[in-house]
Amino acid sequence: MGQDTALKILEKGARLVWENGFNNTGISEILQAAEIPKGSFYYYFESKEDFGLKLIEYLHNGVSRAFSGYLSEETDTPPLERLRSIFEYFRKAFMSDEQKCGCPIGNISQEMAATNPRFREKLHAVFRDLMSSVSLCLDRAIETGDLSPETDTVELAEFIINSWQGALIYLKVADCEKPLVLFEKYLFDKLLPGCAAEGGETR
Amino acid sequence: MGQDTALKILEKGARLVWENGFNNTGISEILQAAEIPKGSFYYYFESKEDFGLKLIEYLHNGVSRAFSGYLSEETDTPPLERLRSIFEYFRKAFMSDEQKCGCPIGNISQEMAATNPRFREKLHAVFRDLMSSVSLCLDRAIETGDLSPETDTVELAEFIINSWQGALIYLKVADCEKPLVLFEKYLFDKLLPGCAAEGGETR
Repeated sequence: MGQDTALKILEKGARLVWENGFNNTGISEILQAAEIPKGSFYYYFESKEDFGLKLIEYLHNGVSRAFSGYLSEETDTPPLERLRSIFEYFRKAFMSDEQKCGCPIGNISQEMAATNPRFREKLHAVFRDLMSSVSLCLDRAIETGDLSPETDTVELAEFIINSWQGALIYLKVADCEKPLVLFEKYLFDKLLPGCAAEGGETR
Repeated sequence: MGQDTALKILEKGARLVWENGFNNTGISEILQAAEIPKGSFYYYFESKEDFGLKLIEYLHNGVSRAFSGYLSEETDTPPLERLRSIFEYFRKAFMSDEQKCGCPIGNISQEMAATNPRFREKLHAVFRDLMSSVSLCLDRAIETGDLSPETDTVELAEFIINSWQGALIYLKVADCEKPLVLFEKYLFDKLLPGCAAEGGETR
């Protein structure tokens, strides 16, 4: 029951923080949204910072599950198609909401990473995890002959995740899907073909 | 004198907002940093929102000046080298500060674009301006034969600015220069060579 309540606070809190930012979301607002009596927050979380750190873990679990699911190796789908499917999935997810709030992890990173070392450390783990999933998928693409063996898959994965995060900022600024469509276009029509096998010189 | 004071408030405010975010920066804090008597804020700005909108204009002027300066056509430097110089300049600028706060414009976009339409509109103008400077520079690179005439310079410029903004988030999360170095590497060693003249197929 306690676990359920903590989870409910995290779920409702995630939504509010996603929409309004961490600093701009009050504890009382979260409790109201979760329909939890005031005062019970500190039963589940030591402080607002502790809530923030657990919120990052909660988001980490969610995004990792999605990446693992779409990039799963227990499928006949070629590696680069699996990679395409994860970005398509998130594009649709981020666009399905009327308010374009971008990526919850990217938002908290932008807001908190420079000023709170404990947040930064946890956020760094999320990014490293996503980059590692992508680089493993790129390694498989080398094995299937879709990418040149000379590809530095660790660096390429980092560039891909960062570029995606940047497109997610501009999603909010331009208030449209185009930045994500463009990201996928450049990734799959330019960047990855530029790293293709057979010398890595052809598209 | 009034102009000077307003500018001082914007300068000091820009620093605080850069470090701590817009919502997390109080008016009294800004006035204290600017050594301006309390109460005088509303002589210069109608509201905190008005201050925020003028802050975006102030940042817009600064970043536009840097882009215009480095991308200036009144030089013998080839277009793509001019493009390289602007990202190098900003990398050094963003790294020179002990606290890695990323891009002031990217930060405010992440924090405010989804929730405040007036901020979003002004931020959109900044991004459009930067993208337009970059796309003009890419147009020149087509003229000098460094890029294929088939390059969609508007889309490429948007992808470049977005990817750069994403690298600037990860600069904060990883607390190091590498995301920006990697951005420049992929841009100048992979992406632009992939759009090179002579069929756009060679590196």
